[in-house]
Amino acid sequence: MKTVTCTAPVNIAVIKYWGKRDTELILPTNSSLSVTLSQDILHSKTTISAAKEFSHDRLWLNGIEEDITKNKRMHNCFRETRAIRQAMEAKAEAEGTPIEPLSTYPVHVCSENNFPTAAGLASSASGLAALVYTLSQLFELTISTSEVSRIARQGSGSACRSLFGGFVAWEMGEKADGSDSYAVQIAPETHWPDLQALICVVSDAKKGTSSTAGMQSTIKTSLLMNERINNIVPARMEGMKKAVLDRDFQSFAELTMRDSNQFHAVCLDTYPPIFYMNDTSRAIIQLIHEYNATSPDGKLKAAYTYDAGPNAVIYAPKENMAEIIQLIGHYFPSNKEPAEFFANPYNAISGKLGEDFIPKSHVNFNENVIPVQPAGSVSRLLHTKVDDGPRVLNEAESLLKEDGLPKRLA
Amino acid sequence: MKTVTCTAPVNIAVIKYWGKRDTELILPTNSSLSVTLSQDILHSKTTISAAKEFSHDRLWLNGIEEDITKNKRMHNCFRETRAIRQAMEAKAEAEGTPIEPLSTYPVHVCSENNFPTAAGLASSASGLAALVYTLSQLFELTISTSEVSRIARQGSGSACRSLFGGFVAWEMGEKADGSDSYAVQIAPETHWPDLQALICVVSDAKKGTSSTAGMQSTIKTSLLMNERINNIVPARMEGMKKAVLDRDFQSFAELTMRDSNQFHAVCLDTYPPIFYMNDTSRAIIQLIHEYNATSPDGKLKAAYTYDAGPNAVIYAPKENMAEIIQLIGHYFPSNKEPAEFFANPYNAISGKLGEDFIPKSHVNFNENVIPVQPAGSVSRLLHTKVDDGPRVLNEAESLLKEDGLPKRLA
Repeated sequence: MKTVTCTAPVNIAVIKYWGKRDTELILPTNSSLSVTLSQDILHSKTTISAAKEFSHDRLWLNGIEEDITKNKRMHNCFRETRAIRQAMEAKAEAEGTPIEPLSTYPVHVCSENNFPTAAGLASSASGLAALVYTLSQLFELTISTSEVSRIARQGSGSACRSLFGGFVAWEMGEKADGSDSYAVQIAPETHWPDLQALICVVSDAKKGTSSTAGMQSTIKTSLLMNERINNIVPARMEGMKKAVLDRDFQSFAELTMRDSNQFHAVCLDTYPPIFYMNDTSRAIIQLIHEYNATSPDGKLKAAYTYDAGPNAVIYAPKENMAEIIQLIGHYFPSNKEPAEFFANPYNAISGKLGEDFIPKSHVNFNENVIPVQPAGSVSRLLHTKVDDGPRVLNEAESLLKEDGLPKRLA
Repeated sequence: MKTVTCTAPVNIAVIKYWGKRDTELILPTNSSLSVTLSQDILHSKTTISAAKEFSHDRLWLNGIEEDITKNKRMHNCFRETRAIRQAMEAKAEAEGTPIEPLSTYPVHVCSENNFPTAAGLASSASGLAALVYTLSQLFELTISTSEVSRIARQGSGSACRSLFGGFVAWEMGEKADGSDSYAVQIAPETHWPDLQALICVVSDAKKGTSSTAGMQSTIKTSLLMNERINNIVPARMEGMKKAVLDRDFQSFAELTMRDSNQFHAVCLDTYPPIFYMNDTSRAIIQLIHEYNATSPDGKLKAAYTYDAGPNAVIYAPKENMAEIIQLIGHYFPSNKEPAEFFANPYNAISGKLGEDFIPKSHVNFNENVIPVQPAGSVSRLLHTKVDDGPRVLNEAESLLKEDGLPKRLA
């Protein structure tokens, strides 16, 4: 039996992916660009064991066994990685230096997120990235990380961007077979260590439209979507790459906010319309614009972005984070134990959350920009930072026991 | 002293006006099309007296005197109508049949809405339409209604559409002086008497962006707006005219919903983004889509539209109105006296509001499409219909006394 355990990070796009030109291969209608967030705060962890003694492929997700044959996307990732391993095995055999025929062994996969799956925190991206990365390690695939990302893309589009740390572009590619549609690293996490993120987990009473169904509906019905794909995103991708390489927060922030809003605009232009943001999401947007508009030097101090859900991710330079956390903490009071609401992992604030909320140097800050929201409108605040790509963990971290069964079941 | 009293209706656009190419003359960036709603339910009423004894022009709005010189747009309407009257007087003088020199008399204007001005129910449209129509009657202007609408346009853009009953297009025109930018009637109110409307007045805690500021911000910053103006609205105007002329509710409804959503999409694509709809607005949209999606014959039964505010206007054939009122009444319960919440002016429903809310023939209707909203999320329901343009009232209806001062002050 061979066992490998890895974690993969969550990534949050600043130029959004929305729409597939090929739903089977998961080829996007536009390129996208994301920031990889720290696995110390959010990650998917996957252990895979391969053993010839296993009877068949098995999968446990968050402690519950699932029928792997019914998960077509996951199945695609297995097929692709096994094919590469098989070719390696055949080549080694032909060269007279055979390697273990792992590609023929059944596997046991056990995967967990250290955050609620339903929270809309890109769990499918980190989950599929962890799966494919762990498979690539298990099979000792001699392929580039971009090649690994090409496989992960077929599991879940944006998963491909979680194969790298730092700043990552998913180039849409042009080829029909998807061979040129994969992730590339624009800059490593060490390039702009000053950039951090605050995730505001927004309560959402009901489930929205699934991304997969939603994006195809947008492509079919939004008359504004083509304009976005053809004439807006290509220039924004170039602008965003430059902003990242120059560590130019002003351009980064404005492009991030504009692109988030435009993504939600094409969702609204979809018929029937798709809503991901709610009144809480909008209140956060108004708060951030007031915070920026009253910045003493006229410069943007924070940028929000929203994926296919109501949660806000606020990107900002580290130096502004204490103010931002206090702002959010005041206007979106918690209905939980303080440490459960905000763990303060980087000791960004010292006093009581939300107490000292008026940004001191913002003399024109309008306290009434939004009303203080009902307690619990934001359910959790996660302070995180730009960080590295998938990590290989040691044996002690395995989610599977020596018999290949999960250590924990739900 | 000569006195005239008129009412003018509210109009609600189904192809939206958003953006001025000339802010001074109020020339729009795209044509628009609206439905005129009954003055029995909502109207602005204006009395104007002209007398050589008056010391100066005076204006009372909803019982409060305002400085007319500070209202530039209203001032434009006075200037334009007086100039036409003056030319008539000069011509009559030259022909030896002089008429009263009303254009030289100061006027007293008294204007009231029979609905809250702040409710975002197009009060500026009906208000300016009533003003200009009353002036045109007072001065006995021998000009077409479209000419009157051209003047009203300079008071408040969409006011021009309240000069006609029924279905009204505001043709954007091309000329720099605005002489070809006015309203024309597509079809009178008698053309499609079956079409009715339900206005859901949605509570809005705080004031949003003003339309005037908002639309210019959209023009300046939205990268999607040009696509809407140049490539989408022209075809929609033609489609909507045809739908109205054919009394084709299917096309009317789909275009209405798509255009409302697209208008709000370009608001969201504005930087900073503009929000007019709130969670209540969105819940109504989801409810109407569920109602339509479960229609037994697969046909649309209702269409929503939202102007620059959270209020929904639901257009529907008369036969569907009882169901729609029950639906809205159930999911958006009142926190008021029943008659204050819904006056039932056309006796559309007989039982208790909201009690019998599941549309009987909709076998697949999902009761949980939205949760029942907090009481008071919708503050009032107004059932209304397509109706006529401005009306001249008799003397007894005057808002001014014989001394030219208001009968009622606030």
